[in-house]
Amino acid sequence: MSKHYASAIWNGNLTKGNGKYALKTSGFENGYTFPSRFENDKNHSSPEELIGAACASCFSMAFAHGLDQAGFTPQSIASEAEVTLNKVEGGFGITAIALKTVGQVPGIDNAKFLEIANDAKENCPVSKALSGTKIELASAILK
Amino acid sequence: MSKHYASAIWNGNLTKGNGKYALKTSGFENGYTFPSRFENDKNHSSPEELIGAACASCFSMAFAHGLDQAGFTPQSIASEAEVTLNKVEGGFGITAIALKTVGQVPGIDNAKFLEIANDAKENCPVSKALSGTKIELASAILK
Repeated sequence: MSKHYASAIWNGNLTKGNGKYALKTSGFENGYTFPSRFENDKNHSSPEELIGAACASCFSMAFAHGLDQAGFTPQSIASEAEVTLNKVEGGFGITAIALKTVGQVPGIDNAKFLEIANDAKENCPVSKALSGTKIELASAILK
Repeated sequence: MSKHYASAIWNGNLTKGNGKYALKTSGFENGYTFPSRFENDKNHSSPEELIGAACASCFSMAFAHGLDQAGFTPQSIASEAEVTLNKVEGGFGITAIALKTVGQVPGIDNAKFLEIANDAKENCPVSKALSGTKIELASAILK
């Protein structure tokens, strides 16, 4: 069992206030605002950006592990996440996470690559925790 | 509707490889490893730390909004998240997220504070997305 820590503070109300989160291991701090979540402020971070980084990083590691277990040698797995925040009944929701991954894996064929990628997408710890949203995956072998 | 972006790369296999994630808005990059997730390496980050920061930051903002909507003026909402990664059937899972929050909210009584805090914990976008794990909340008014 392992434990992982982070914190956040929000000052003021929704639209005029501002927030900051901090990661325990590095002490890295980053701001987030109403416009950075719900509008087009790209100068501040958002919880959704963190969800995207968590999803891409957990998936990439799990995919590499799945490849290794199946007898392949993963050299690199590079993934991008696009997280959509949208209006839903009763407020806002994270309605989709689109993952794109490119793997450098000598000797694998496309079908096996897709099978192992999909298994990682379904079963990595972050994907399982995020069962309240939909994760889609597009994957390609780097030749 | 808004979109949020992040990426990650994993090099090598599970135990000897290493990874790095990046946040799009700031370009911030941070490493993660097998020991930083499953063992006690506190020098590197982890997807679970990002999940903790996402959960604490989304909850804090939603709680401030709920207070404001109920006629209170939230001055600050400070939250900490502890994310537990544990062995489960078929691998590993994020089995619990423990949130602790302290709010500076003039004029509120304890029952109302708890009611609004619990509503934010149940219904903020990140909590709803994380429906595959259990989020527990301990809250206190800062006097």
